[in-house]
Amino acid sequence: MSGMTKTPQPPYYAVIFASQRTDGDKGYENMAEKMVELASKQSGFLGVESARDYDLGITVSYWDSLDAIKNWKENTVHKVAQERGKKEWYKTFSLRVCKVERDYFFEM
Amino acid sequence: MSGMTKTPQPPYYAVIFASQRTDGDKGYENMAEKMVELASKQSGFLGVESARDYDLGITVSYWDSLDAIKNWKENTVHKVAQERGKKEWYKTFSLRVCKVERDYFFEM
Repeated sequence: MSGMTKTPQPPYYAVIFASQRTDGDKGYENMAEKMVELASKQSGFLGVESARDYDLGITVSYWDSLDAIKNWKENTVHKVAQERGKKEWYKTFSLRVCKVERDYFFEM
Repeated sequence: MSGMTKTPQPPYYAVIFASQRTDGDKGYENMAEKMVELASKQSGFLGVESARDYDLGITVSYWDSLDAIKNWKENTVHKVAQERGKKEWYKTFSLRVCKVERDYFFEM
């Protein structure tokens, strides 16, 4: 869905979202796609990486500032998704806001 | 494999490792399990979360200090795995060292 993200020189910010889903789709995949589309239009968005297997999903989004993260958190459409997430889609999740201090890229 | 990680109060550190694999296992799964086992014995290790789907794998490990990350990076057995990773297992990867400034946990 999202592939690898090439980010600019650190420092920049990352939001690590790890989650365990409830059973069934209940509109989740559709919403997830829309959220990526919407996030990528936000000012300060640098990219997103996502992987999910049977046990756990991890989505990492990258941003150029804490303000950009705050604006995305408060985006009205995103807020609706956040509420549905808590009520329907996620058994449990964690969200971590981080400052990326160093990075390294490898290509074969 | 790893589930969700309960970490202590921030600040602490995260290493975000995103990768795209080459074809075939070539001893990868076995090594990955061993690395988690070995990392979890390192001083300063707080936990690890991992997810992989057809396109991308994301592993996030959590540490109490930059020194703990450095020690893990320089672990002799881990160094051998790093070399094999570049030669055999990964088409591409990124590695980001981050300071976790804020976190939030939700349970249904």
